Amino acid sequence: MTTATQIQKDTVLNGVNATKLGQTIEAVKQQPEIAKFKFRARNQWDIGGHNVATVDSFYGTCQEMEHKAPFVMHADEPPVLLGEDNGANPVEFVLAGLSGCMTTTLAYHAAGRGLKIDDIQSEFEGDIDLQGLLGTNPNVRSGYKEIRVKFKVKGDVDEQIVQELVRKSPVYDTLANPVKIKIEVEKV
Amino acid sequence: MTTATQIQKDTVLNGVNATKLGQTIEAVKQQPEIAKFKFRARNQWDIGGHNVATVDSFYGTCQEMEHKAPFVMHADEPPVLLGEDNGANPVEFVLAGLSGCMTTTLAYHAAGRGLKIDDIQSEFEGDIDLQGLLGTNPNVRSGYKEIRVKFKVKGDVDEQIVQELVRKSPVYDTLANPVKIKIEVEKV
Repeated sequence: MTTATQIQKDTVLNGVNATKLGQTIEAVKQQPEIAKFKFRARNQWDIGGHNVATVDSFYGTCQEMEHKAPFVMHADEPPVLLGEDNGANPVEFVLAGLSGCMTTTLAYHAAGRGLKIDDIQSEFEGDIDLQGLLGTNPNVRSGYKEIRVKFKVKGDVDEQIVQELVRKSPVYDTLANPVKIKIEVEKV
Repeated sequence: MTTATQIQKDTVLNGVNATKLGQTIEAVKQQPEIAKFKFRARNQWDIGGHNVATVDSFYGTCQEMEHKAPFVMHADEPPVLLGEDNGANPVEFVLAGLSGCMTTTLAYHAAGRGLKIDDIQSEFEGDIDLQGLLGTNPNVRSGYKEIRVKFKVKGDVDEQIVQELVRKSPVYDTLANPVKIKIEVEKV
């Protein structure tokens, strides 16, 4: 015999298990330690602008975790930047990450508020002046000066809600605000 | 009959055409406009934490350019973050981009200085406290609080030079310093 509790189904909205999302938020309120994640990548240079990043493990909910398979990402530069074009270049990876993060954040947070979303498309464009990297102009930064984002969203959300929710994205915050980066170097 | 100029070969170091790199720097000094690049990504949400970014075109040297093939990147979340683990997650893409950029910047700048590099390996780890994204603690940011980087480098460079050169990376600057991000939303 099944009980009422056992037959109660989880609510899934936007492909997100909103029931589990709510349970996660409650669990984090009770035990904030489980919310502390460490994400990782390692990189092996090949030659010139070609190198390979691998992502396989991370830490979260107070334990070491593994992805179901390693994710391998080839970065390269196009010929105009003296590469062989065997992969997106690193600054394009950052835009891809920003796009994925703002999209997922919108889908998850909308689900958390009971708002159905039918489609999310977006475009990202960022300005880099290579005078910064090449060192020909000390007043030019090497990274993105500005990134422009356009979202097209279909569903039970208005423009203002989308503007609010996409800004909760961890990658948005990572880019919009400074991050402390510590670098160790070992000569081998 | 070939002339002395025609038979002069380009210098290639670390897989980087140092002759062309030098010519590029001179050309940028003469005409800074050619250094202004625009990089792009577009994204299509699938469901839940799964979405697909595509990188195919960019702008640089005063013209529109195409990669030799579109680069397609699947982002997802692991089960502990309510996804299906069908791709690295967006914050991992950012670490991959940082790793690729610091690596390439080191290889290129070393080549520009005539320094030979034999191997570059690196590890990246960043802290994200999900209390920020979940909104359970207003004092916690949603993005990376800190990123730790370890480089192991073999070649004619000492630790100090590596520390100096990897910090010239555009993604390093993009993360270490704030970027202006403009967001447009269209309800469709």
